Amino acid sequence: VPGGTLSSSHFGDRLAALVTARESQIVVGLDPDPAKLWPGGDVPAGTPAEQAAAAVRAHAFAVLDAVAPVCVGVKPQLACFERLGAPGWAVLGDVVTHAHELGLVVIADGKRGDVPVTAAAYGQSLLGSLATPWGDVAGLGADAITANPLLGVDALEPLLAAAGTAGAGVFALVRTSNPGAADVEDLELADGGPLWERLARLVDDLGRERTGSAGLSDVGAVVGATVPGHLARMRELMPRAVFLLPGVGAQGGDVADLAPAFATSPAGGLVTASRSIVGAHETRGGHPATAARAEAETLRALAWSLAAV
Amino acid sequence: VPGGTLSSSHFGDRLAALVTARESQIVVGLDPDPAKLWPGGDVPAGTPAEQAAAAVRAHAFAVLDAVAPVCVGVKPQLACFERLGAPGWAVLGDVVTHAHELGLVVIADGKRGDVPVTAAAYGQSLLGSLATPWGDVAGLGADAITANPLLGVDALEPLLAAAGTAGAGVFALVRTSNPGAADVEDLELADGGPLWERLARLVDDLGRERTGSAGLSDVGAVVGATVPGHLARMRELMPRAVFLLPGVGAQGGDVADLAPAFATSPAGGLVTASRSIVGAHETRGGHPATAARAEAETLRALAWSLAAV
Repeated sequence: VPGGTLSSSHFGDRLAALVTARESQIVVGLDPDPAKLWPGGDVPAGTPAEQAAAAVRAHAFAVLDAVAPVCVGVKPQLACFERLGAPGWAVLGDVVTHAHELGLVVIADGKRGDVPVTAAAYGQSLLGSLATPWGDVAGLGADAITANPLLGVDALEPLLAAAGTAGAGVFALVRTSNPGAADVEDLELADGGPLWERLARLVDDLGRERTGSAGLSDVGAVVGATVPGHLARMRELMPRAVFLLPGVGAQGGDVADLAPAFATSPAGGLVTASRSIVGAHETRGGHPATAARAEAETLRALAWSLAAV
Repeated sequence: VPGGTLSSSHFGDRLAALVTARESQIVVGLDPDPAKLWPGGDVPAGTPAEQAAAAVRAHAFAVLDAVAPVCVGVKPQLACFERLGAPGWAVLGDVVTHAHELGLVVIADGKRGDVPVTAAAYGQSLLGSLATPWGDVAGLGADAITANPLLGVDALEPLLAAAGTAGAGVFALVRTSNPGAADVEDLELADGGPLWERLARLVDDLGRERTGSAGLSDVGAVVGATVPGHLARMRELMPRAVFLLPGVGAQGGDVADLAPAFATSPAGGLVTASRSIVGAHETRGGHPATAARAEAETLRALAWSLAAV
């Protein structure tokens, strides 16, 4: 079923079917800055937060409408909505709903990580719901989230439990795309290998019993596209994991280097690009929507050709 | 000035003055579960999220009113507000305002950590503000935040920049209070010592040039009170850092073990307790507010006696 709405089916199976149906592994990143939105209509009167949130909503909907046909998912950056306060959080919910209407998987990028009782609260917030004396409060309804594994397995388990119930996925950070990632993630361990290899083993251990019929686990890994030299090793360590690959374009990553991500399945890698798609008109010229669609299609065709080899 | 509102002064100096004035290092944690609130009045009609948020607001205000006179700060757990959606985020803002009215420092506990451009957005969200074409959007106005250092120095720097501008602080995770923390934070490194020691050195390096006249840096460390055996070593590695010490009470930590945190300054350690204060009536009996105040005062007197030695 090429729909992004939550279902009881396994995340890996759902994603594999969706990637095949759409012939796309492209996930458009939404990191809206109210000062750099696509030209749009007027926004209603209100507080600065309300007006900025309304403008972000119109922008995000326009971006999704433009690129959804060539994408498999969207990755909203929670910080960019949170900084608009309550109106921003409301707009984030609207964006999730609209993305689902367009058949996209929603990956809520918040890189949450906390002690178990708090991790459970994040699971309710992003993937599940919260029972209250006044009725259930629905969470964001994301199809997957990003998570930070520094606090260990017991801090990831409540997120995995929430994901399992929702048919959703959890992408744990393994090696991020920023230059400073080397400071901690690349530290050599006493028993051999860098920390990121240990994080990769942790992802594989957690996912082994959570693998669907398509061979993909619902525990994925965030692997920066800026470090393609590590990808073959990553795939060796995590044969069942879907790789979420940020950093293509503005951060310097090149899709052509990502082939190892697709070695096990066309859905083994999700290529996320934000500024390079949303800001494509700055280099390509033309209408932002047209340029964004063209850039996303270029990325789609390239990634799909790698997966089909 | 014993006020918790943002000012241009240095966080360490502000905190040191406040701890001395209030003779308290106690930070009450707010992790409200709508199913376990203090008995309160009716809430207005609305959606489940709106009603639950209104009830959480009344509960949080009652908790703050009860314990503020014996505390120095409050640590709202962002997950517990976020899971109530936009109404929850609005209530979080009200809680910050009320805490400031009561003279408390607000430590926004979200353990954020992301690539630099996104870290800057979290800085705007929690500590600063965002410029938009419709005017500035004020952030939460916290006096300090918790942060996850897995992504390295360049991911922490935007948070530190926002903190410096606001006179706020950043508490980086060094060794958390959950049992699973051992999985990653305790891994032995090839050049000696566990990962948490390396994180401690990172905190010290970042804070060396950010130390105020009271000798405290505005880069602090989250150090679980459940691992008191490490505290003397932590203090050795981070002589200028304020330690945020969660885990007292419900998670098994004992205030009496925390003396090394106060070795350099009475404000060198902040003892955070959530369930043991807010749920004190369950063991002490009596009115929740009375029991919470008594429990917070017991913790305050014990911590203050350790600091005064």
